[in-house]
Amino acid sequence: MGLNYLYFDNAATTPVDPLVLEAMLPYLSEQYGNPSATNGPGRMARLAVETARKKIAAILHCKPKSIVFTSGGTESANMAMRTAVAGIRLGNMITSRTEHPCVLHTARNLHYKGQVSLNYVGLNSQGSVQLTDLSELLEQSHGRSIVCLMHANNETGTALNIPMATEICKRNKAVFFSDTVQTIGHYAFDLSADSPDMISASAHKFHGPKGVGFLYVREGLPIQPFITGGGQESGLRAGTENVASIVGMAKALELAAERYYSDALHIRLLRDELKCKLVTLGATINGTDDGESLYTVLNAGFPTTELTENLLLELDMAGVAVSGGSACSAGKGGSHVMEAIGASDLVNIRFSFSRNNTMEEVSRLCVLMEDILVKQNSMA
Amino acid sequence: MGLNYLYFDNAATTPVDPLVLEAMLPYLSEQYGNPSATNGPGRMARLAVETARKKIAAILHCKPKSIVFTSGGTESANMAMRTAVAGIRLGNMITSRTEHPCVLHTARNLHYKGQVSLNYVGLNSQGSVQLTDLSELLEQSHGRSIVCLMHANNETGTALNIPMATEICKRNKAVFFSDTVQTIGHYAFDLSADSPDMISASAHKFHGPKGVGFLYVREGLPIQPFITGGGQESGLRAGTENVASIVGMAKALELAAERYYSDALHIRLLRDELKCKLVTLGATINGTDDGESLYTVLNAGFPTTELTENLLLELDMAGVAVSGGSACSAGKGGSHVMEAIGASDLVNIRFSFSRNNTMEEVSRLCVLMEDILVKQNSMA
Repeated sequence: MGLNYLYFDNAATTPVDPLVLEAMLPYLSEQYGNPSATNGPGRMARLAVETARKKIAAILHCKPKSIVFTSGGTESANMAMRTAVAGIRLGNMITSRTEHPCVLHTARNLHYKGQVSLNYVGLNSQGSVQLTDLSELLEQSHGRSIVCLMHANNETGTALNIPMATEICKRNKAVFFSDTVQTIGHYAFDLSADSPDMISASAHKFHGPKGVGFLYVREGLPIQPFITGGGQESGLRAGTENVASIVGMAKALELAAERYYSDALHIRLLRDELKCKLVTLGATINGTDDGESLYTVLNAGFPTTELTENLLLELDMAGVAVSGGSACSAGKGGSHVMEAIGASDLVNIRFSFSRNNTMEEVSRLCVLMEDILVKQNSMA
Repeated sequence: MGLNYLYFDNAATTPVDPLVLEAMLPYLSEQYGNPSATNGPGRMARLAVETARKKIAAILHCKPKSIVFTSGGTESANMAMRTAVAGIRLGNMITSRTEHPCVLHTARNLHYKGQVSLNYVGLNSQGSVQLTDLSELLEQSHGRSIVCLMHANNETGTALNIPMATEICKRNKAVFFSDTVQTIGHYAFDLSADSPDMISASAHKFHGPKGVGFLYVREGLPIQPFITGGGQESGLRAGTENVASIVGMAKALELAAERYYSDALHIRLLRDELKCKLVTLGATINGTDDGESLYTVLNAGFPTTELTENLLLELDMAGVAVSGGSACSAGKGGSHVMEAIGASDLVNIRFSFSRNNTMEEVSRLCVLMEDILVKQNSMA
C-alpha cells in the first residue's frame, strides 16, 4: 500500500483502485475535451460523462437524469438541503445530533438564517434514531418538512432503517434526504423501490478519487441549482464537469457493485476478529453493533486512564492509521457523536475497513493493540 | 495530441500537461490519506495540500491563507458573490452584460431573490467596460456595492484595466471581485499591489485538471463559507480536499509562471498569423484586439450567408476544434457576448490557443479556412 501503514481509516478515505485510475487516465491526457463544447473532443468528453451517469443510474436503479454530479458528499448535502428548503419552501427541518458536519452545520446555518425551524430527533443510548419520535415530530410540525438523516453513522456505523424512515416521511409528505456517503458502494441500493427523495455520495469512500460525488434527486422533485452558471447537469449544477473523476467514480461503483457481497463477507470476518480481541482487552463497542450496522466501521471505547489517553498516538507511532473521531472533526475537540451517545468519557478509536485489508493485517493489529494495552496496564 | 484534432478551443479547456499528471499520480495511488485525518497518511496529504497552497500564493504574491481551494471557477464565483453579499451586507451589485454565465446568472439570481439591486456597466462597441460609467454608478449607489467584472472576456479576449478598476472600487469602498479564469496562468499577477479583493481560477484553463480551482480572498475581507460542513480550508470551504487535483493545479501554475513570457510570445505569433489570414478572407475581429486584449483568444466574425452558417460544422468535419461561443453557452442559442457588442448578425468563430499549438497547425488551419471559404464563395 505504499504508505507502509496498517491502514484502518477507510471511513475517512479509501485508496483509489488501480482499475479506477486506469479508467481515469485517458481523461487526464489525450481525452481532454470540454463536455459542453460541441466540437469533436467535446462530444467525446460528453459521451464519457453521460456513459458514467447511465452506469451509476443502472446500479442504483434510477433514471440517469436523477444523478447530478458534484464535487463530493459535502457539496451534495449542501445542495440537497439548501435548495430544497428554498425551492420547495420547506419551513421545518428535522435531523439528528449525530449527523456528519456537512448536514449538521448546514442545518444550523439554515436555522441561524431564519430559513427553517430545526428539530432534533431522539436517539437511544446507542445512537439509533427513535422512529416513533420522528413520526411525532412530523405530525406536530406546521407546514412541510425536510428530514435529513444519514443512512449509517460515519463514527459508529449505527444504521437507520431506511424503508421505515421513508414510509414515515411519505405519510407526512416530508422531503427525505439521506446522507448515504458511508453506504453507497458498500450496499446494494434500489431507488426504484421506496427510498429517500435525495441521497448523496462521495467517490473516495468507495475507492474512487477525491473531489467528486453525486446527488440523487427523485424525478419531479423541484430542486434548484446550488451553484449557478453555465447550465451544466441539466441546469442543476454549473461548472465544467470533472470528466476524469466522474469516469473514475462510475468505475469505482461498478467494481463495488460486482462484489458487494464477497467484500462485505470478507470485511465482516476482519471486523469480528478485531472486535473479539478488543473486547478481551477491555473495550466496549460504541453504537448498535448488530447485523444492521455498517460493517466497515468498528468503534471501540476504552476506559480513560493516563495511559489510554495516548492510545491514538501510540498506534500512530506503531504505524497504524486509525481515527479518534471522524476525519472531518479531527483536531477540533471532542466528537459530537460520542457526546450524543454518552461515550465521550471513554477513549474511543474508530477502526474502519476496506476490501484491501487482510486478515494478516488484522492479526498484526491485534498483536500491537495487546502490546500497547498490556504494556500500558503494566505501567499503570 | 491523441485526439487527432487541430485543437483551437483552449479557452474552453486545455490539455493536462504531462508533468502535471506526473505530479498528481502519487496522490491517486499510494498517497491516499485524508488531509483532515491526524494519522500518518493524513499528515502526508495535508503537507501536499499546504505545499500547493504556498506555491500558488508565492506565484501570486499573496498570503497562503488567502487561497481557498474550490471545485473550479464557477464555484469560486458563486462563493465570492453569494457570501460577500450575505456576509458583508452589500446591497448593490454592478457587473457587465458580457460576463461569464457563472457571474451573470449568479448576479441575476441574487437580484431575483431580492438580495441586491443590479446595475450593468456601460460597454463600448468592442465590449470594453466604460470606467467612467463604473465610477458614476458607484457614486450614485446607496450603501456598499460589490463590483463583479472579469479580467478578460472568454469569447473575445477584451480585457479590463484592473489597476484602474481597482482604484475606482477602492475610492468608492466597493468590494471588487474579478473573474480571472481566463488570465490566471497566462499573465503574471501581483496581489501585493493594488488588486481586486477576490479573484477566481480554474486549473483546467492552464493545463491543470478539471474540477479544481481556487478563490483568492484578500486578508481581512469578512467572507463566509459557501459550502458548510467539516471546517476545511480554515472553515471557508467544507469537504475533503481534492488532494491530487490541488497538487496538479499548483504544478500547472508553476509551469505557467516559469514561461509566461515565452509562451505569450509564441502564442501571439500564432494568433497574428491566423488573424492576417482571416482578415484577408473577409473576417472582422470581434473585441478590442489591441495589445491589452487576451492573447490566447481570437474571435473572428464572418458575414452571414447560407454557406458561412455552416462554418462551425465544416471546421468540425475537417477535424478542427473551435467554438461558436463559449463552451458554457454552446448549444443554448446565440452568444450573449456577441449580442452585447452588436456582433450577433455575424457568424462568429472563437479560435483559442495554448502553448501546445504550433505554427504548422496554424498553417494547416489557414489552408483549411481558405478551402472552406473559397469553396463556399465559389458555391455561392
